[in-house]
Amino acid sequence: QKRFVNDTIRNDFHRRFLNSVAVDLLKAAGDIEGVDFQFTDALVGGAAIDATGCPLPDETLEVCKASDAVLLAAIGGYKWDTLPPEQRPEKGLLNLRAGLGTFANLRPAVVLSHLADASSLKREIVDGVDIMIVRELVGGIYFGQPRGFKTNEKGQKVGYNTMIYSEPEIERIAHVAFQLARKRQKRLCSVEKSNVLEVSMLWREVVTEIGKQYPDVELSHMYVDNAAMQIIRNPKSFDTIVTGNIFGDILSDAASMLTGSLGMLPSASTSNDGPGIFEPVHGSAPDIAGQDLANPLAMVLSAAMMCRYGLSMPQVAEHLENAVSSALDQGYRTADLYSDGTTKVGCREMGDVLLKAL
Amino acid sequence: QKRFVNDTIRNDFHRRFLNSVAVDLLKAAGDIEGVDFQFTDALVGGAAIDATGCPLPDETLEVCKASDAVLLAAIGGYKWDTLPPEQRPEKGLLNLRAGLGTFANLRPAVVLSHLADASSLKREIVDGVDIMIVRELVGGIYFGQPRGFKTNEKGQKVGYNTMIYSEPEIERIAHVAFQLARKRQKRLCSVEKSNVLEVSMLWREVVTEIGKQYPDVELSHMYVDNAAMQIIRNPKSFDTIVTGNIFGDILSDAASMLTGSLGMLPSASTSNDGPGIFEPVHGSAPDIAGQDLANPLAMVLSAAMMCRYGLSMPQVAEHLENAVSSALDQGYRTADLYSDGTTKVGCREMGDVLLKAL
Ligand SMILES: CC(C)[C@H](C(=O)O)[C@@H](O)C(=O)O
Ligand SMILES: CC(C)[C@H](C(=O)O)[C@@H](O)C(=O)O
Repeated sequence: QKRFVNDTIRNDFHRRFLNSVAVDLLKAAGDIEGVDFQFTDALVGGAAIDATGCPLPDETLEVCKASDAVLLAAIGGYKWDTLPPEQRPEKGLLNLRAGLGTFANLRPAVVLSHLADASSLKREIVDGVDIMIVRELVGGIYFGQPRGFKTNEKGQKVGYNTMIYSEPEIERIAHVAFQLARKRQKRLCSVEKSNVLEVSMLWREVVTEIGKQYPDVELSHMYVDNAAMQIIRNPKSFDTIVTGNIFGDILSDAASMLTGSLGMLPSASTSNDGPGIFEPVHGSAPDIAGQDLANPLAMVLSAAMMCRYGLSMPQVAEHLENAVSSALDQGYRTADLYSDGTTKVGCREMGDVLLKAL
Repeated sequence: QKRFVNDTIRNDFHRRFLNSVAVDLLKAAGDIEGVDFQFTDALVGGAAIDATGCPLPDETLEVCKASDAVLLAAIGGYKWDTLPPEQRPEKGLLNLRAGLGTFANLRPAVVLSHLADASSLKREIVDGVDIMIVRELVGGIYFGQPRGFKTNEKGQKVGYNTMIYSEPEIERIAHVAFQLARKRQKRLCSVEKSNVLEVSMLWREVVTEIGKQYPDVELSHMYVDNAAMQIIRNPKSFDTIVTGNIFGDILSDAASMLTGSLGMLPSASTSNDGPGIFEPVHGSAPDIAGQDLANPLAMVLSAAMMCRYGLSMPQVAEHLENAVSSALDQGYRTADLYSDGTTKVGCREMGDVLLKAL
């Protein structure tokens, strides 16, 4: 079985360490299951800007479309922060998501009992948390038109964006969320701000309607401000959450803090047909670049999500996930998770531990 | 000294208990300082809907405009949740904010050492937290035009809202925030999503420009997703935060969780000239209505903010704040804050304790 994985780099900060750990692991796990992963490199983000002047070269999008899945590291960095908006690394990421139509972004926040103490929340609040956030990724205010700058009637400069969702956009993400909830605890919480926003009223209406097709899933609705509160107050009350692009951006970052380390969190962005994008939730952390300090686990777990959700190879996914559990069981920790009584390792060394565990 | 306070009720759930505690305290504290508070009642929210069919009757807005300050309890309740958007209690609140032009919403999140254990976060993370969130309250996506529902080119139903800010709207809130920061730790963090949204790019640009007039205040910028994370991870890193309407709505609710009880949190909404609105951050909690269970401290602290920010009577504010500290020092707690070793009291009884402390 041959699988083409597009090992896209967003920028080269952690490439030597982060990506190579994930790629090595995938190869090894593939070997066990008789899968021959083929990797193609392509440029996106800062690395692409440096090489071509464009954050998502046409060639990269073509290579991605021709692949079975896209594995991505983190983008952005101080160096490109002063470029005009259209030329920033982030634009490459947004265009890649839009270009591949990966509308469903799955962001699990699972607290491993081993790491529960690393959270800023009390152990009894976070231990056992297992939330799946389903974020709409190619619509809403991120892509809504009209947008831009103009001068208003009073001659004042204004900036504006449009938060907009159509019925079919809400329907398709709702289906993904209900289907996921069905495989989990069968509880779906739809998050919006329908006490103020029309776009959210439509969201609630459509999600409620689709819910009738999933009578076995318990649907609830929550305002986004309350959700931000409940995620901190009683995170175990959540199972699956479905929400729009920007609310999902904010809530998934908040939820990531339950786990104590952003360095642990993978994500999957899928469409209904083409290749999905699999990437860690963490950023490029330019401050620790090149020091062999980064935590490769989010990247490895993203590769696992790729196998599970993108390539339908749950066995390979399990090998990777088990390797991660085993490394943690043995007490190995990168700097971000280190505490007394554990063994501190660098990125590369963690990679070796994982390979051995496999 | 005569002061006219419009003691607006949003709905009557906790009126008998909550408001009367605050009003009694204000009268008593006013007596000490030779201030004669005059209270006028007016209807807004659910109570107004029941009486007049409209969530903000013209008469209420007029009475508010003619007052020196508006003291408000919580709005909303299951009963009105199925009304059309224009007739919901929330609309009364939004129209009151807009009608009085209270563009600057101050939401402090202060963790009292006494109550630090009530938080879901670890004591060492929250003890000593003192954040002031300055939220723009009468612009952004809450009020942006165009908004509504339509059918798109493909014949699909869509819902949409506009997130929009003009230069002067950003300037005036920035000034309020810089001036507040100046009286605090002199650190201001401006929160937006300028890596994606044009409205946020303008926000960052204008705040940066205004910052030049406050060289003694250290200005930083943070994306909203990261801010949601940092508030949970390291809340003590924040001093003053300035942000737009919806981001402020979400972040202030998240920050409220640091304190362990929403029942403790006051807020002030001020304009540059007319009366301000002073209200607890908590909602109307219809589930405990009429049981004498509610925590009146947020309401009393809102009255204190009214004296400090709305009426320039810091002495009266201090009396109220000291009464709250004293009640907590003595170990009195309402049900939401109760823990072993403290004395559980109802809303009215807490009011008596506060009066005695005064
Ligand atoms: C980098 C940025 C454009 C992106 C987003 O806002 O979607 C990031 O925050 C994320 O959540 O993947
Ligand atoms: C009730 C609602 C309209 C309101 C808001 O979103 O502003 C509330 O959440 C608040 O924060 O005061």
